[in-house]
Amino acid sequence: MAFESKIKTIEWVDNVSRMIDQTVLPKEYKTVDIKTDKEMFFAIKDMIVRGAPAIGIAGVHGVSLAAIELSKSITDKSEFLSKLKERGEYLKSSRPTAVNLMWGVNQQIELASKTQGNIDEITKALIENGIKLENEDIEINKKMGDYGAQVVPKGATILTHCNAGALATVGYGTALGVIRSAFAKDPTIKVFADETRPRQQGARLTTWELTSDGIPTTLITDGMCSYFMSKGMIDMVVVGADRIAANGDTANKIGTYTVAIAAKYHNIPFYIAAPLSTIDISIKSGKEIPIEERSHEEVTHINGDWICAKDVNIINPGFDVTPNELITGIITEKGILKPDFKTSINNALKS
Amino acid sequence: MAFESKIKTIEWVDNVSRMIDQTVLPKEYKTVDIKTDKEMFFAIKDMIVRGAPAIGIAGVHGVSLAAIELSKSITDKSEFLSKLKERGEYLKSSRPTAVNLMWGVNQQIELASKTQGNIDEITKALIENGIKLENEDIEINKKMGDYGAQVVPKGATILTHCNAGALATVGYGTALGVIRSAFAKDPTIKVFADETRPRQQGARLTTWELTSDGIPTTLITDGMCSYFMSKGMIDMVVVGADRIAANGDTANKIGTYTVAIAAKYHNIPFYIAAPLSTIDISIKSGKEIPIEERSHEEVTHINGDWICAKDVNIINPGFDVTPNELITGIITEKGILKPDFKTSINNALKS
Repeated sequence: MAFESKIKTIEWVDNVSRMIDQTVLPKEYKTVDIKTDKEMFFAIKDMIVRGAPAIGIAGVHGVSLAAIELSKSITDKSEFLSKLKERGEYLKSSRPTAVNLMWGVNQQIELASKTQGNIDEITKALIENGIKLENEDIEINKKMGDYGAQVVPKGATILTHCNAGALATVGYGTALGVIRSAFAKDPTIKVFADETRPRQQGARLTTWELTSDGIPTTLITDGMCSYFMSKGMIDMVVVGADRIAANGDTANKIGTYTVAIAAKYHNIPFYIAAPLSTIDISIKSGKEIPIEERSHEEVTHINGDWICAKDVNIINPGFDVTPNELITGIITEKGILKPDFKTSINNALKS
Repeated sequence: MAFESKIKTIEWVDNVSRMIDQTVLPKEYKTVDIKTDKEMFFAIKDMIVRGAPAIGIAGVHGVSLAAIELSKSITDKSEFLSKLKERGEYLKSSRPTAVNLMWGVNQQIELASKTQGNIDEITKALIENGIKLENEDIEINKKMGDYGAQVVPKGATILTHCNAGALATVGYGTALGVIRSAFAKDPTIKVFADETRPRQQGARLTTWELTSDGIPTTLITDGMCSYFMSKGMIDMVVVGADRIAANGDTANKIGTYTVAIAAKYHNIPFYIAAPLSTIDISIKSGKEIPIEERSHEEVTHINGDWICAKDVNIINPGFDVTPNELITGIITEKGILKPDFKTSINNALKS
């Protein structure tokens, strides 16, 4: 049973990529129209659009935008394909951790090289593929939601970290998609949302999108999770993923690993919700996943204000890796994968 | 070997209690003069002064201020003592978790009732006791520092949470006192400071006081601790305490328990540094320690700005309890107490 959410995070409209500007939520709701691949590079880098599946589609749209621009000045097909590939590499360099961005760009580049016909026909095919992938993203999330809802106990309080919601996808969400589907079946479920410093996506985005959809949400600071777990106030944890290795080790927003350790200590089920496109089978374990180092200001400043002494050192990893031993299951569009993950991931990708 | 720190957090000067205003650090350094017990009540409640040992001394000074005021209008000694006791109860109600506040106020009330002589002589005795306790607090911290420094490995990186520093005491600090003493012996040690949301005492106070003293400090957000532990970048954890039960269970700033679980998972030693006055032998286990619930704005706002959706729920416990099984040792002025803590605490209090 799917819950209807009005949020459309990224959408191809009139030859532009229209996206909700996530840097100004929850104070302001506005959309921006991204018109070139260069604008898309910065929209991804500056996190106007963020969340692994959403930046996958952003990468797809980015290649379509590049194709539109190149088609205006290039007439030679092989030159067009070669330049398009360059633009794709550029787009992929905007953020290193989420595999979905690579997936989205690579898929378009491959489609371009396979498509019969002239440059205009290739460009048209890329645009149509983008629209198809948008719709598929929502369908995949709804399937994941249905599978995930089956393991949510009646009246459960679910803890989530960061924002793996409609705002992290085209719509509906991965971890928050599971919550939406569970809420549609059982309106007594509740959510605890971690603030998720440094960028506070839990506070800024998750509380906004869940309360917009009428789902009761309690905001907590990141250090509080264990306190509420010890009081029996949290029944399960569901989070998203930026990249999953072949053995199930999962990179997700910094702080996820801490929540997973706390859940294990309290014997609380800890689930990842992510489409199969998040799995990077070429990577054996989490140790090989590149971790993006982000700007120091994300830690030292909040809303433009200093919060600490000025001569402090900063290391700001954007993600951490939760080892497979802490993960109860990975909720995908093909069902819930269980340990050992190496086998269950292999089977899901083959089927 | 003691490190010299210039920070004097609370000090009796010319019949007022002079304290560093901790609500405006690190942007501004200023002191405020507290002149009445009512002003002291709000200085504690609004956290102009905070940290268990410091608010113990604030309670002591508060009773002295009440005595000065009462001595101006009351001539009957038993009426004076009775009113003084009332003012003491009022002061104790400003914050419920730290046992040091109760310890400080009760000590003064007992001294008043035992002191021979007239009201002026009693008042004088209370003031003198306050000054004596100030000096003792620093001496105790230096002793704790020396004991604690013995278990700091050469070149260690020490993680701390919240601010158990000079700013949480009269001077020198408990957890940060251990760090100061370790740094005096070995200037290659380094500190990682948790931001400590919601009130960010780690970012605002710990980074300020450690960098002021030239100790290299890296600020991290609360969710990051496990990431750095898994990378082998943290060698030990030292934190303060607001109340320790007879079995060693320790109440400290919210988020401490999460760090303790992460430390256990990574086999990293986790120490409490606290004077024996923090131990509440009347409380058998952490379950009985009252946890202060603080205002919702501490979670929903930073620097006066909303950071989340407006119709979100908030629960804001100021403290959590770390169970004794996660604690490697309790560093006190009489040495490092080890498990089983029930026995070691009993022995320390008797000796």
